[in-house]
Amino acid sequence: MTAAGPVRSESDAEAEAGLLAPGWAGSPAASVTSDGAFLGALLDAEAALTRAQAGLGLAPDSAASAVSAVAAADLDVRSIALRARGGGNPVIPLVADLTAAVGKEYGPYVHRGATSQDILDTALMLVARRTLDLVLADLERTARALGRLAAAHRDTVMPGRTLTQHAVPTTFGLKAAGWRSLVLDARDRLAGLRLPAQLGGAAGTLAAFAAFGAEDPGALVAAYAGELGLAEPALPWHTLRTPIADLAGGLAFTAGALGKMAADVLTLSRTEIAEVAEGSGGGSSAMPHKANPVAATVIAACARRAPGLAATLYGSMVAEDERPAGAWHAEWEPLRELLRLVAGAAHNAAELVEGLRVNADAMRDHLALTHGLIVSERLAVELAPVLGRARAKELLSRAAERAVAKNRPLVDVLGEEPELKELDLVELTDPTRYTGSAGALTDRALERT
Amino acid sequence: MTAAGPVRSESDAEAEAGLLAPGWAGSPAASVTSDGAFLGALLDAEAALTRAQAGLGLAPDSAASAVSAVAAADLDVRSIALRARGGGNPVIPLVADLTAAVGKEYGPYVHRGATSQDILDTALMLVARRTLDLVLADLERTARALGRLAAAHRDTVMPGRTLTQHAVPTTFGLKAAGWRSLVLDARDRLAGLRLPAQLGGAAGTLAAFAAFGAEDPGALVAAYAGELGLAEPALPWHTLRTPIADLAGGLAFTAGALGKMAADVLTLSRTEIAEVAEGSGGGSSAMPHKANPVAATVIAACARRAPGLAATLYGSMVAEDERPAGAWHAEWEPLRELLRLVAGAAHNAAELVEGLRVNADAMRDHLALTHGLIVSERLAVELAPVLGRARAKELLSRAAERAVAKNRPLVDVLGEEPELKELDLVELTDPTRYTGSAGALTDRALERT
Amino acid sequence: MTAAGPVRSESDAEAEAGLLAPGWAGSPAASVTSDGAFLGALLDAEAALTRAQAGLGLAPDSAASAVSAVAAADLDVRSIALRARGGGNPVIPLVADLTAAVGKEYGPYVHRGATSQDILDTALMLVARRTLDLVLADLERTARALGRLAAAHRDTVMPGRTLTQHAVPTTFGLKAAGWRSLVLDARDRLAGLRLPAQLGGAAGTLAAFAAFGAEDPGALVAAYAGELGLAEPALPWHTLRTPIADLAGGLAFTAGALGKMAADVLTLSRTEIAEVAEGSGGGSSAMPHKANPVAATVIAACARRAPGLAATLYGSMVAEDERPAGAWHAEWEPLRELLRLVAGAAHNAAELVEGLRVNADAMRDHLALTHGLIVSERLAVELAPVLGRARAKELLSRAAERAVAKNRPLVDVLGEEPELKELDLVELTDPTRYTGSAGALTDRALERT
Amino acid sequence: MTAAGPVRSESDAEAEAGLLAPGWAGSPAASVTSDGAFLGALLDAEAALTRAQAGLGLAPDSAASAVSAVAAADLDVRSIALRARGGGNPVIPLVADLTAAVGKEYGPYVHRGATSQDILDTALMLVARRTLDLVLADLERTARALGRLAAAHRDTVMPGRTLTQHAVPTTFGLKAAGWRSLVLDARDRLAGLRLPAQLGGAAGTLAAFAAFGAEDPGALVAAYAGELGLAEPALPWHTLRTPIADLAGGLAFTAGALGKMAADVLTLSRTEIAEVAEGSGGGSSAMPHKANPVAATVIAACARRAPGLAATLYGSMVAEDERPAGAWHAEWEPLRELLRLVAGAAHNAAELVEGLRVNADAMRDHLALTHGLIVSERLAVELAPVLGRARAKELLSRAAERAVAKNRPLVDVLGEEPELKELDLVELTDPTRYTGSAGALTDRALERT
Repeated sequence: MTAAGPVRSESDAEAEAGLLAPGWAGSPAASVTSDGAFLGALLDAEAALTRAQAGLGLAPDSAASAVSAVAAADLDVRSIALRARGGGNPVIPLVADLTAAVGKEYGPYVHRGATSQDILDTALMLVARRTLDLVLADLERTARALGRLAAAHRDTVMPGRTLTQHAVPTTFGLKAAGWRSLVLDARDRLAGLRLPAQLGGAAGTLAAFAAFGAEDPGALVAAYAGELGLAEPALPWHTLRTPIADLAGGLAFTAGALGKMAADVLTLSRTEIAEVAEGSGGGSSAMPHKANPVAATVIAACARRAPGLAATLYGSMVAEDERPAGAWHAEWEPLRELLRLVAGAAHNAAELVEGLRVNADAMRDHLALTHGLIVSERLAVELAPVLGRARAKELLSRAAERAVAKNRPLVDVLGEEPELKELDLVELTDPTRYTGSAGALTDRALERT
Repeated sequence: MTAAGPVRSESDAEAEAGLLAPGWAGSPAASVTSDGAFLGALLDAEAALTRAQAGLGLAPDSAASAVSAVAAADLDVRSIALRARGGGNPVIPLVADLTAAVGKEYGPYVHRGATSQDILDTALMLVARRTLDLVLADLERTARALGRLAAAHRDTVMPGRTLTQHAVPTTFGLKAAGWRSLVLDARDRLAGLRLPAQLGGAAGTLAAFAAFGAEDPGALVAAYAGELGLAEPALPWHTLRTPIADLAGGLAFTAGALGKMAADVLTLSRTEIAEVAEGSGGGSSAMPHKANPVAATVIAACARRAPGLAATLYGSMVAEDERPAGAWHAEWEPLRELLRLVAGAAHNAAELVEGLRVNADAMRDHLALTHGLIVSERLAVELAPVLGRARAKELLSRAAERAVAKNRPLVDVLGEEPELKELDLVELTDPTRYTGSAGALTDRALERT
Repeated sequence: MTAAGPVRSESDAEAEAGLLAPGWAGSPAASVTSDGAFLGALLDAEAALTRAQAGLGLAPDSAASAVSAVAAADLDVRSIALRARGGGNPVIPLVADLTAAVGKEYGPYVHRGATSQDILDTALMLVARRTLDLVLADLERTARALGRLAAAHRDTVMPGRTLTQHAVPTTFGLKAAGWRSLVLDARDRLAGLRLPAQLGGAAGTLAAFAAFGAEDPGALVAAYAGELGLAEPALPWHTLRTPIADLAGGLAFTAGALGKMAADVLTLSRTEIAEVAEGSGGGSSAMPHKANPVAATVIAACARRAPGLAATLYGSMVAEDERPAGAWHAEWEPLRELLRLVAGAAHNAAELVEGLRVNADAMRDHLALTHGLIVSERLAVELAPVLGRARAKELLSRAAERAVAKNRPLVDVLGEEPELKELDLVELTDPTRYTGSAGALTDRALERT
Repeated sequence: MTAAGPVRSESDAEAEAGLLAPGWAGSPAASVTSDGAFLGALLDAEAALTRAQAGLGLAPDSAASAVSAVAAADLDVRSIALRARGGGNPVIPLVADLTAAVGKEYGPYVHRGATSQDILDTALMLVARRTLDLVLADLERTARALGRLAAAHRDTVMPGRTLTQHAVPTTFGLKAAGWRSLVLDARDRLAGLRLPAQLGGAAGTLAAFAAFGAEDPGALVAAYAGELGLAEPALPWHTLRTPIADLAGGLAFTAGALGKMAADVLTLSRTEIAEVAEGSGGGSSAMPHKANPVAATVIAACARRAPGLAATLYGSMVAEDERPAGAWHAEWEPLRELLRLVAGAAHNAAELVEGLRVNADAMRDHLALTHGLIVSERLAVELAPVLGRARAKELLSRAAERAVAKNRPLVDVLGEEPELKELDLVELTDPTRYTGSAGALTDRALERT
């Protein structure tokens, strides 16, 4: 569109490459959330506005074509960024450059009747849409892999842990099914989000569009949204921030859902536990032998950051007047950050789960770590009818102490009690026979699609 | 249940009365979220568990009756609170006291097969249910009052303000309709929340219930949820915190929605603006003449606090193992606080809106504050075809400067331009004729129920 | 002061006992942060104001005595809480009740020249002062106990863990010394806080005090601060919230410092690791054998909550005008909550550390879990001069693989390499000989007092 | 250093130019916090490490020279960013590239004995140091300009506003002096920060340095810190995050301090108030006449974001083990973001204050908006001795009502009361004579340097 390419106004020394963001650098989401991608989305919004006006006879088709032909690469993103300071947002310099780029004839049709926020909010929604599509695909992929893991390990018994201590047995299948249910909850919340285009003009009354000749400005809004593949807004939402707040909630939820899984993977990966391992652990700059749970680590980092970012976005719902001084400006970077952080986490989660190595032997071995006390709950129940509740409790307590002190299996200690001769102690103390409804719960959870 | 009433273990000096909480103290939500109410909810959960077991033939009906007969007033809430420190949660001492209260015969049927978290999480859901019912009623009431306001002021023109400055005209009807749409969004998010009972046993496998004889522990879970009027959980959710996170999101949203309205009321109440006033403003300890916008103030305070509380709850999704050491414990008070803060805000919002006094004259008067520049956008559009874009812009700029400098209405300044003789300048510069689609948007928004 | 005691306006069903707060219920901080204690602090502020005026001859001494004689127990805290809603803060009804309590003669000297915020902010500082004194004592106690632990375990070798994996050896002494250094950092930050009295009158100009006859209102401020043992403010700080923000930072820091220790205790307490155990672990309602790390758990919960509360307080620095509509009101409960949460955590930390049981044998045993790879860093360094860097790396890699695959100690595998015959492999592979400067660092850290 | 320049591995479409960051794009802080600047800081740390080792005779000087000669521009920041994903941090690929860049002879001296976190944490401190220097300079500049404003407007009377309503008079001088005191508080907190180098090796024991021959690893740490101009750490602080938490607190404080001023500027800039205006307001894409308070707006946006970022950093103090899996990784971007947001805000604040236009006439005019009720506090005090408290209150109340209802000045209404004949009502009702200690407080505050 411009004869010469844009002149980069400064050295690339300031360019951001994601150096501090191993959680998303290089991921598909990096490309759709970059400054360049945002510039493209801003242009998409401007082009859709002119096309929608052309469609309603308010602008010549050739103007719509001219605006649509300008690409992000035709403009100097850094220059626009620097000039954004003057008015506090990048749309003002963008409109100037875009007007210049389309030339004198079509310039008047650029941004006609719109306010900066119409274009920027719409671009936020476009970027959100593109990022969410990636996230949703990765969540589906994660859920599928977790479904396979849960089915494969439906009966893999492991210690259930509460407040860091072995409690009663559970299964890895149930654990994986639980992770999957959270991932599906996240998917449902993100898939249900409604991302509307923004169009209201200076103060949300659509007045300028009427001044420019639109008989039904509502039809223009609908056409604009249609051009962009975004939902049609019920009202201009310059200070009715439902779409942003819903994104905040959905993304914080997703970060938390993946963070739960990462927390478990980190725990189960510990050198002393080693019940799972990432397929390809990360290296260390100092210790060649280490295989770190890197994917879980960066997901955990995302989960630590998402709540603070979401809090800022929820806080920005408090936006005074028809367009606010600060609340809106505080949304842009946190929303972008939340989008790419969560997208990176979802991508890492998919890879993590697909490559997860499960050590069922270690899980089984660990069931014995408490000398059989992991089934003490069951014994308390089963011995009560035989011995009476009080006597059962007392005997169990004593046996437990002895098992720990002498480092002997509880089953052996109990076997010395004449009162218990009639009981099948081997069965009663077998942790693999005390998994309750773990299998049934897993089956039921896997029915969900 | 106990012969003598409970002995208060300490003086009431430590009792909390809501002294620092004018936003909710004395509101209906205060009663359903107090420590006493929580104790009642914990008892409701215990009673429902025994009744559900009785219903499945796992316990005598008389045990269910005995447990159900114990009321919060029969127990010493402070003593339970103090003894909670030992195990880190109040259910352990509660079970001890409840077991004692029902006597030796029925004691064994108390809390049978459950873990502390089953009871506490269920109580959280019961308290949430009770509080949300209050919130939803107040949101409906607020929305109705806003609907009336919006209809009554459909054509009340006022300055549209952006970045603190007059931009173009809007209507108070559209503003009220926007507030209403946020309130309805909040209502829809809260009404859509699914609040499940919690029942999983020690590590979420339901194993103890089977040991106690339940053939289908799933049926027990269903019966328990049914007794409580809560949703049936798909899985035990000890570390799958979807219900808590969804509450966090829904409540933070509601706080933000009401906070937007409060921000506008505070702005429009300013001494210099005075376009609205609270029906009964609050007094001051130092200045007898003041009428402060107190309801808007406490709603604004709620909106400042909700995001931080929600962030903590989203963060607690990262809950390791089958039951976590800290993440769960970090939820109780923030969730309760969020519930009553938002309930208080909703209650205040209803009263605020029902009593809001709107000063349409002040709104109209303020349209003139910029000497007519509030319609400069329109003039730029309308003069362009007459004068050409460049000439129109130049003439308008000059006229605007003169109007401000000479403190004259823009219409008079423009009236001196011979080129504009043919135009109906009175109509073109009348702010009340430049409200665009404000009326149509208001009508459309009010169709939503 | 009042003839009849106060009438409790509602049942105690709404009284808060700390049922959901095992982290601080029953702790010394509970008493100094309760509603009753706040009421007392508000009265302390009012009494100090009248005394300061009497001291300057602006009020009769008998009025000062009368105001000083009213105690929290003489007033009805719940009634004040409920009536606080009218003006949005509890000082307005408090002043009414206090004026009535001192009788007609002295009533005019109550609250004279002050604004609500003068009294409430001052009470916040008094409560903060009283709570911080408790926190500081518990931090000192914790630091002393950690000093003893670090000295006793100066040479107790254990696995250093990074990203959940064994890395190289460290000592428990260094770990405890690190915890101590954080605790001392927290102490220093809290001890350095300056807590000023608040006195400015309606809009912070001290104008009313002059109207009431004070020749030098600054002297009145100094006398008032002196009466209360608080710092003298340089300016009224109604909207200059340095004291609140500094408290937020200091308390969030302390929560994080204790939270780091708690995180380590939780990890090291895991059934599979069991290198430390709380002196008296908490019980479980379902599993009699469990000894949960309850103190670490509630400290961890505090550390999860503190950042969100501090964020709200930092956010409240943005307080418009001379006194704000919402920012101030949003501070009271979060500040109180932060104070008692952190005080409870400090109290639990002192008990935790004093009772901590350290299993040095388990620590030593775990050094062998990686078959000796925990010293691979050292071997890479030491073998390079002998074999050349490339050859050393290759040989080590192969040996490591073999050690893991064959489940043999690395020292044995390496012993089969003829090239390494000259090396003292037993020494080189001994983890207890590869602790670097752990001892020296511990010694140095313990010199700090 | 490399023969050919680095190959940009991807298109610049992903480069970040600060498009969504008008608050800091193009500011001096943008340059020192960019990915390129971070890469430079990482290299600075590596070079200092080799130089420190050379200084102690542990490496040849030529190696130190070789490492020091590699500049950020010699490396491919994007490639490093992408490869960072493998190990979860950018130091691992950086070390690989740096080792290659210095060639075979000096490669062994690169990163010797260090762990990734040593280098990354040190780089964070270097970037913080460089950014804080900019912030401090801008805070000093802001404070100087505020000092001038406060002195110039020491006696400019304006309405004191509380809860959005006129309360009693104050002065713009006192307001500016208050802003200045907050700015100086921020300066003091930032200037007092201690930023230490990080050096601990794999698990913080400095063991590898001893293995490489350092007799006193502590001396190496001191030399390394000295090379960098950073403080010497008492202990390796891989999981003792005092420096990060202190930065979080100091920066959040600064954001809040500037945010308070911005909030006031935004309020006072409102079209209806217009008591101040930014020197060069920002334009609008839709309304040519508007002059928006853009600097205040972007400062306000910073103040909304800082608390959430600080909360994440405080939360990251909870870092388990010797180096954590996630807590550390969650710090990098929030810390960088906080640094440049606050630096941008400080830069904008300096420009805002230096250019602020104060409309003293508007301030004086507004004193009359309440018909004189702005001095009702004074009248209540002064009339009491004349009329008795009760009668004075009653008379004032009635007069106030009449003044408002009849739209007459209070002084005229009171002048009709025969009882008040002896009083100098003109003086008593003159708002400019009821500014209390505003002047004295301003003078005192300005003494602080």
